[in-house]
Amino acid sequence: MIMGRGLVNRLLALIAACAALAVASAAQAEDGYRLWLRYAPLEGEALARVRALPLVVHADQDPTVALAGEELVHGLAKLRGEERRPGVVITASRLARPLPPGSLSFECRDSAVPPGGAFAIKPADGGLRISAGEPIGCLYGAFALLRELSLGRNPAKIDLDERPAMPLRLLDHWDDPNGYVLRGYSGRSIFDWWKLPEHLDQRLVDYARADASIGINGAVVNSVNASPLFLTDRYIPKLRRIADAWRPYGIRLYICARFSAPKDVGGLPTADPLDPAVQAWWKARADALYAAIPDFGGFLVKANSEGEPGPQDYHRTHAEGANTLARAVGSRGVVIWRAFVYSAEDQTDRAKQAYNEFVPLDGQFEPNVILQVKNGPVDFQPREPFHPLFGAMPHTRLMFEGQITKEYLGQATHLAYLAPYWKEVLDAQTGRGGTVAQVIAPAGMAGVANTGSDRNWSGSHFNQANWYAFGRLAWDPTLSSAQIAREWAMQTFSRERGFIGKVVPMMIASREAVAEYMTPLGLTHQMATGHHYGPGPWICNLKRPEWNPCYYSRADKGGIGFDRTASGSNALAQYAPSVAAQWADPRTIDEDYLLWFHHVPWDFRTPSGRPLWGELVYRYDRGVATVDEMAATWASLAPYVDPERFADTADFLRIQSREARWWRDASIAYWQSINGLPLPAGTRPPEHSLDYYKALSFPEAPGE
Amino acid sequence: MIMGRGLVNRLLALIAACAALAVASAAQAEDGYRLWLRYAPLEGEALARVRALPLVVHADQDPTVALAGEELVHGLAKLRGEERRPGVVITASRLARPLPPGSLSFECRDSAVPPGGAFAIKPADGGLRISAGEPIGCLYGAFALLRELSLGRNPAKIDLDERPAMPLRLLDHWDDPNGYVLRGYSGRSIFDWWKLPEHLDQRLVDYARADASIGINGAVVNSVNASPLFLTDRYIPKLRRIADAWRPYGIRLYICARFSAPKDVGGLPTADPLDPAVQAWWKARADALYAAIPDFGGFLVKANSEGEPGPQDYHRTHAEGANTLARAVGSRGVVIWRAFVYSAEDQTDRAKQAYNEFVPLDGQFEPNVILQVKNGPVDFQPREPFHPLFGAMPHTRLMFEGQITKEYLGQATHLAYLAPYWKEVLDAQTGRGGTVAQVIAPAGMAGVANTGSDRNWSGSHFNQANWYAFGRLAWDPTLSSAQIAREWAMQTFSRERGFIGKVVPMMIASREAVAEYMTPLGLTHQMATGHHYGPGPWICNLKRPEWNPCYYSRADKGGIGFDRTASGSNALAQYAPSVAAQWADPRTIDEDYLLWFHHVPWDFRTPSGRPLWGELVYRYDRGVATVDEMAATWASLAPYVDPERFADTADFLRIQSREARWWRDASIAYWQSINGLPLPAGTRPPEHSLDYYKALSFPEAPGE
Repeated sequence: MIMGRGLVNRLLALIAACAALAVASAAQAEDGYRLWLRYAPLEGEALARVRALPLVVHADQDPTVALAGEELVHGLAKLRGEERRPGVVITASRLARPLPPGSLSFECRDSAVPPGGAFAIKPADGGLRISAGEPIGCLYGAFALLRELSLGRNPAKIDLDERPAMPLRLLDHWDDPNGYVLRGYSGRSIFDWWKLPEHLDQRLVDYARADASIGINGAVVNSVNASPLFLTDRYIPKLRRIADAWRPYGIRLYICARFSAPKDVGGLPTADPLDPAVQAWWKARADALYAAIPDFGGFLVKANSEGEPGPQDYHRTHAEGANTLARAVGSRGVVIWRAFVYSAEDQTDRAKQAYNEFVPLDGQFEPNVILQVKNGPVDFQPREPFHPLFGAMPHTRLMFEGQITKEYLGQATHLAYLAPYWKEVLDAQTGRGGTVAQVIAPAGMAGVANTGSDRNWSGSHFNQANWYAFGRLAWDPTLSSAQIAREWAMQTFSRERGFIGKVVPMMIASREAVAEYMTPLGLTHQMATGHHYGPGPWICNLKRPEWNPCYYSRADKGGIGFDRTASGSNALAQYAPSVAAQWADPRTIDEDYLLWFHHVPWDFRTPSGRPLWGELVYRYDRGVATVDEMAATWASLAPYVDPERFADTADFLRIQSREARWWRDASIAYWQSINGLPLPAGTRPPEHSLDYYKALSFPEAPGE
Repeated sequence: MIMGRGLVNRLLALIAACAALAVASAAQAEDGYRLWLRYAPLEGEALARVRALPLVVHADQDPTVALAGEELVHGLAKLRGEERRPGVVITASRLARPLPPGSLSFECRDSAVPPGGAFAIKPADGGLRISAGEPIGCLYGAFALLRELSLGRNPAKIDLDERPAMPLRLLDHWDDPNGYVLRGYSGRSIFDWWKLPEHLDQRLVDYARADASIGINGAVVNSVNASPLFLTDRYIPKLRRIADAWRPYGIRLYICARFSAPKDVGGLPTADPLDPAVQAWWKARADALYAAIPDFGGFLVKANSEGEPGPQDYHRTHAEGANTLARAVGSRGVVIWRAFVYSAEDQTDRAKQAYNEFVPLDGQFEPNVILQVKNGPVDFQPREPFHPLFGAMPHTRLMFEGQITKEYLGQATHLAYLAPYWKEVLDAQTGRGGTVAQVIAPAGMAGVANTGSDRNWSGSHFNQANWYAFGRLAWDPTLSSAQIAREWAMQTFSRERGFIGKVVPMMIASREAVAEYMTPLGLTHQMATGHHYGPGPWICNLKRPEWNPCYYSRADKGGIGFDRTASGSNALAQYAPSVAAQWADPRTIDEDYLLWFHHVPWDFRTPSGRPLWGELVYRYDRGVATVDEMAATWASLAPYVDPERFADTADFLRIQSREARWWRDASIAYWQSINGLPLPAGTRPPEHSLDYYKALSFPEAPGE
């Protein structure tokens, strides 16, 4: 009996030690590297239910199926709070029958499910079955199931039948061969071309896994301001090494092609797209790429835009340029041609130029050409109306381009959750064949990636949510912003109701706050030159008129805003009449677009009843106040978040809070210098003089 | 009894689960972030001995003592294989007596121990006591004790009495405000000036801890090609935030001062060091820095070198320039003035210029000026004789500058352990007051850091060894290279005899291999322009003669090498006669310095008996063969190393192996084009033509 008690006591001591260890492991520093794939242990009933679930892995030889099995084994073990692998039965070839009761099983070549990533998760044999028409569907199904379980769903009630809303779900990396990331705020490039092909960083595999978990199926690995190096022989083994690593995750590799490459690296005297030698050169390049990478995705091209070379250098159209590359690629892939063009010589409203350039070319593109159109007609501003090209080219496939890296929305340090931003455009009725989401459904979405070498991938923990949301929306644009935020936050931080109930509304409010303290009421591009971070509404001396904030604000003694109605540039006429009608009248327009479309006097009476000047100041103040509320909300969430990620986010909210005031104060000081008006009663005056704000300089700002 | 057994079984199941968890934690991916501070669990007797050691933490209020206590608590728990904290007794103020038998105790204000970091670890009360004169000594003692225990030493036999060999043990960071690291091969800067002062990255704390663990006690946070931003008011809170975080670790913060700052950011019309307004400006700047950072270290200055501004712009001497800054700093800190100067106008042998410039100024510097002298007279080449300034300025404190980041030794991808390199110089007899180590003892050593934002800190796992070795040598230059390698490898990778017995010789051989396949027999700077990575012996067209490899090789039909004897530049005369005598005769000189000091014919008979040309080829081949052996050695060590770090290193050795051949083949092809000689019998011809090697271009190479 004494011995018995001694044994029990020793065992209890061991357990205490173990418990301490478990706590210590759980409490290990969270640096954000694991993103939303943490699979934190479940608790209570959810835990019991997941523990009850055995697993059958279908031992298909396909590497993607193997990954799906490994992900489930890994994910379930983590959700169960064990490091031990859950019970795994490997069957010889097709599913062994009968399965253990309540099993979770795979069927990855089910002819009843369409190809292209679709999957179903259904009750089967008293358990669950993931069915897909192709292996990649099983991988997507595995991630979907783990997501549902992570959210605490009862496996018995899971019944999913999903297929991607669009075929191309891409990330565009604006990365240079030397590791510099244009508009990157999260360190250096994840691609280390210098050490490839011998060395492939583990991060590139982890990246593909994260992409696959949200349905991303392709990545353009270099900047649209493209180096011709990517079209040289020396780069083929480098590209192949990456493509080989990504293939099992269903990520196809694309490159940006520099239009002048036939001259730059091909030894030809011209890059004229109608020159037979140029056409043969592109064909040979495509052949060499496909020989190394059979599933090479294709080329993305920025042509005749911001100084990049293009077909117009040879008096050819964009269609003639795109078609030469498209014929070289043929049925093996696509050529994605960017619609983001504006010309130094063109004196028309910049917002009109892409439409003017491309609409006449509708129907002239090869079938494997896709036109990639930014969400709005200017350049990733905190708010823009949808781009008028959406719906205006019925004979051309159009793709949506969004910017995940927040060049104009506070970059790494300001918290702005972008799902509501993208939804605003995706859900917009074009008046010409449905919503933007419907217009792009035959093509897809591309997001300018926010990934970099920073340990947290995205420059801030909350910027990860934008990568996540972009992938989820490309998979299913009908998902709500709140649902995506909830999913992400539960997987990334905590499932606790006390956390989710506060953090989701905070995220939902965040982008609107940024829009309000930076560019309220439809103002555009008031950012300072170069870094595009802080305010520069006074800037009016840059070489090209459309680079200047004053070009967009049109602020003068008489009023503010860009007249894009018939009395002005008439950009409004580029929209379908039903859409244009909503925006034509400054008295009835949604105030968020007021100054985008109208130049109105400072005393213009807005629908709120306030005069424009008062409304403007009110909006700046509301943006600032929202950030303060966000900071207070976050402070209250300390009990739910590990110390490192909590402090990182709190620090950044402190920066955002200070800088929201900077934006508000500098902007108001400038508008006052223009309109000479006193501040509305009860309004706090700017902290410093306008000269103070004008003199600020930040040579270490990213992008400067 | 049934119940009892049931309980025991349930407890056993819990323990099994715990064991699985513990194994999984230990097996987590090793990404190199933890450096040599992994404290991997001990085994066998060593484990039993460490488990028997209780701990008493002296509850001094000093934050450094607190850190020493935390490090011991953390380190001992890890060495014990537990996450539980070991028994800790916190005493009220001074050491409580009697202590538990066999205790480990602290005494951090022991007047019997000198200040400045010295410590003793001695048997006391049947246990061990760490004694120090100042808190920082206790922190160093804690790290030293953990190191000894990590190496498996019996605590009963530990008896240490250490003091640092020199007061200044610094790292120089060549980091720009925008995050670019000059000659950095490990990502971006660890300093994120843009987000400071609000946000301090955890990495900067972890950095200070790693530095303290090897005795580093200061860091210069910005590049010697200094931005004047660091002297503006806006940077003071940023600098203060870092200094505050570093203070408990004993790391003092220094900045590089741009000599023209009084003009650049001070609004003065001149930076003439004798101008009273300039002097007042520097004084005010120093005062502002000291007001924010009471232990601010001082300024490092690169003046009149490679285009940087300096006192000679105003026809003042280096001493006049340095003294103006030194008076501004006063007794609060130091001014470190770099001796690395060479002039475009000066036609003398570049290796002679620093000596010529500074020796006449000996005795003219303020007492708080230190002259920082590179290890050799040119520029961090794979091998150089020691700098002739060491010993030549008896009235001036001289400091050693080494380059941890391997600009000329294969950067991130080539494995070269640098302790033997630095030892070669530190141990050299100057013939004027002892060894180089003795000459610099009143001042110190500065290493150009190899730290960056890469997860493994240093661009490669083995580059961490150079950071470690530099700190250890600054603490004690009498340590052997092998001992440092052994310490580092045991803490970083594995204590297994089968591992250490092979990896230490591999490390020791590595730098010699690089010297041989890049620049054998005392050749210098044969690196290609810009990146300084691959071979460029043919380069002869750069603007300044001393930038060209041909300037250093002096290769022609008649022979090769730089005549630095009396018949040539007579740089040899800058050394003490006893030293010069060793190197004066090409027939008796150590062959490693042959072509540094002598121009000899291609058929010159070397001490080996081979003609020079044959010896040169032999050395290239030996360098290549050593790399192949290193790769084979590493391949055999797979059982001892975690998969990620094993693969990273294997990949890099594969790159090094290919590139060692590139170096050898390109160099031999070039020398043949000059000397017209056939290859020695049995020698493998270069794989490609000379034109092939000349045409290679790597625009993505770091530093390009």
